[in-house]
Amino acid sequence: MLGSETKTLEILKGLEQSLLRNINYKFYLFGNKNSIIKNIRRFKKLQNACQIIDCKESITMNDKPSDIIKSKTFSSMHQAIKSTQANETDAVLSFGNTGALMTLSLLNIKTLPEIKRPSIASIWPNMKGESIVLDLGANTKLSSKYLIDNAILGSSLANIILKIDTPSIGLLNVGSEEIKGNEEIKNASDRLRELSNLELINYYGYIEGNDISIGKTNVIVTDGFTGNIALKTAEGTAKLFQSHLNSAYKSSLISKIGYLLSSLSLRSVKERLDPRVHNCGIFMGLNSLVVKCHGQSEFKGVSYAADIIYSLLQNDVNDRIKNYVIDIQRKIAI
Amino acid sequence: MLGSETKTLEILKGLEQSLLRNINYKFYLFGNKNSIIKNIRRFKKLQNACQIIDCKESITMNDKPSDIIKSKTFSSMHQAIKSTQANETDAVLSFGNTGALMTLSLLNIKTLPEIKRPSIASIWPNMKGESIVLDLGANTKLSSKYLIDNAILGSSLANIILKIDTPSIGLLNVGSEEIKGNEEIKNASDRLRELSNLELINYYGYIEGNDISIGKTNVIVTDGFTGNIALKTAEGTAKLFQSHLNSAYKSSLISKIGYLLSSLSLRSVKERLDPRVHNCGIFMGLNSLVVKCHGQSEFKGVSYAADIIYSLLQNDVNDRIKNYVIDIQRKIAI
Repeated sequence: MLGSETKTLEILKGLEQSLLRNINYKFYLFGNKNSIIKNIRRFKKLQNACQIIDCKESITMNDKPSDIIKSKTFSSMHQAIKSTQANETDAVLSFGNTGALMTLSLLNIKTLPEIKRPSIASIWPNMKGESIVLDLGANTKLSSKYLIDNAILGSSLANIILKIDTPSIGLLNVGSEEIKGNEEIKNASDRLRELSNLELINYYGYIEGNDISIGKTNVIVTDGFTGNIALKTAEGTAKLFQSHLNSAYKSSLISKIGYLLSSLSLRSVKERLDPRVHNCGIFMGLNSLVVKCHGQSEFKGVSYAADIIYSLLQNDVNDRIKNYVIDIQRKIAI
Repeated sequence: MLGSETKTLEILKGLEQSLLRNINYKFYLFGNKNSIIKNIRRFKKLQNACQIIDCKESITMNDKPSDIIKSKTFSSMHQAIKSTQANETDAVLSFGNTGALMTLSLLNIKTLPEIKRPSIASIWPNMKGESIVLDLGANTKLSSKYLIDNAILGSSLANIILKIDTPSIGLLNVGSEEIKGNEEIKNASDRLRELSNLELINYYGYIEGNDISIGKTNVIVTDGFTGNIALKTAEGTAKLFQSHLNSAYKSSLISKIGYLLSSLSLRSVKERLDPRVHNCGIFMGLNSLVVKCHGQSEFKGVSYAADIIYSLLQNDVNDRIKNYVIDIQRKIAI
């Protein structure tokens, strides 16, 4: 676990909250020991369930992934990943530089033998509940092979996190019936249809951007370029809405009173849609689990991410993905 | 003007509202004459400023663009486009099938000599005001040439609509510093930087999805695939927010009272962010102006779209784009 880029206190508070729900959790906290010790006193339970590893260096948001491969090896990020690679820890939760985390994960933890490239997945709120969207930026290259991998990874994740036996999978596309230049998507769709006909996955077909919020499918598959832009655009829209709403409430005394009266229900909306809560990116397809949270995460986001990691580990997510892929390959071969 | 796919009454009401602001407007209404005549009685001013052309056919949302090129030539869409091609009308406003409209526009109205492919632009609300985003789905192929065209088209549009002398242009990209597989975007960025150094455009550089809502640049350039998905994802997010908000208000009596007290300010937020108001797609780069509004547009959206068309026509948008492109080409040649 790393924490140089965000408020240590929020992280510790979030971890303690998750520990109360998942009592077998053990944490290795990589970071500035003094800062951690100063803040952890308030969290007695966490204190008894963790080990602190002092890290003298830290990777900043401005470090280029290529620059930190061989440098800053005593950073919290490097050390945490090395501990997972050495099987001392089962998963990494980071609040740092996404590009650096992905590069170090790829080089050290490496992908599952069946998966060519990892993918970043996230849990997205919708009208009906939640869905899994991936890839959100690991792979910016559009390739039918990656899209198919994403469908398999996302399906496994939805199966465990959303507790759905055969999660429906949608492939993100534009509305037009006649699509030019997206042969990779068409090929992926054809292949996913075949796998669906063999009842290996539950492929719905193409979906559009607005279908994500409607909750048309449990899994939304796209390439990392489109997914990253869709995610950030949605976050920006949510913030814009929130900001206009706040100004509207401040616009008159009557509006302010109205706000006070409805603030309890509004808070629940904010929490359900707040990107600071739904902000963790799950790196799927690596030999160990790596999860990235926003640098500005508040304790609720941290505890949410820790809960997800716990659930994935308890459910042997990687073994299930491996078996899933092997099963698919075997059935296709027959 | 066409109207088979939406409520005629809303369209007529919207047009009359725009006519009150733009008194020199003349409308040619293509559609079911009986339905138009029945509804137009309530709008005396509009009645005096329009001509009704009865169209016996109509293109539905399910018609494939390739199927209607030579069929349904007596549809309102075909007839309206033909009237613009014949210079009887200056612009087309449609509420129908986007793919069909784009195909018919391309075949009949054709692109400006300097522009290879048209682009769909939209006006997007942000924290500071509004920005122009394009392409929203005309061209799903990622090509540096199209991205550069989009920057020029968007800059002209922002200049006229947003009244900004040298609108800043951002190129939509993912956050990662090391982008793989997006050579087209890198090439476009290099070229836009050169044009900016020559002071022909005002290129800001790469921006991310969340920067759209922040309003970091006046123009946001992307390919039609990414733009379409970003737009629809943002619309979906806005609807999700609205829907959660509505349920929150209904959750208790106190919340309901709160809602009533703040409903006036909330209505203004809804109008500023409602996709039904900001929902028109401006087809840029054709020899005549074509604007597509959502089939479910309400009168405010219709009047908003009609205002934009009027403003663009008054400002000779196409001549300005032509001159802009010629100017750039001349200066580069020197």
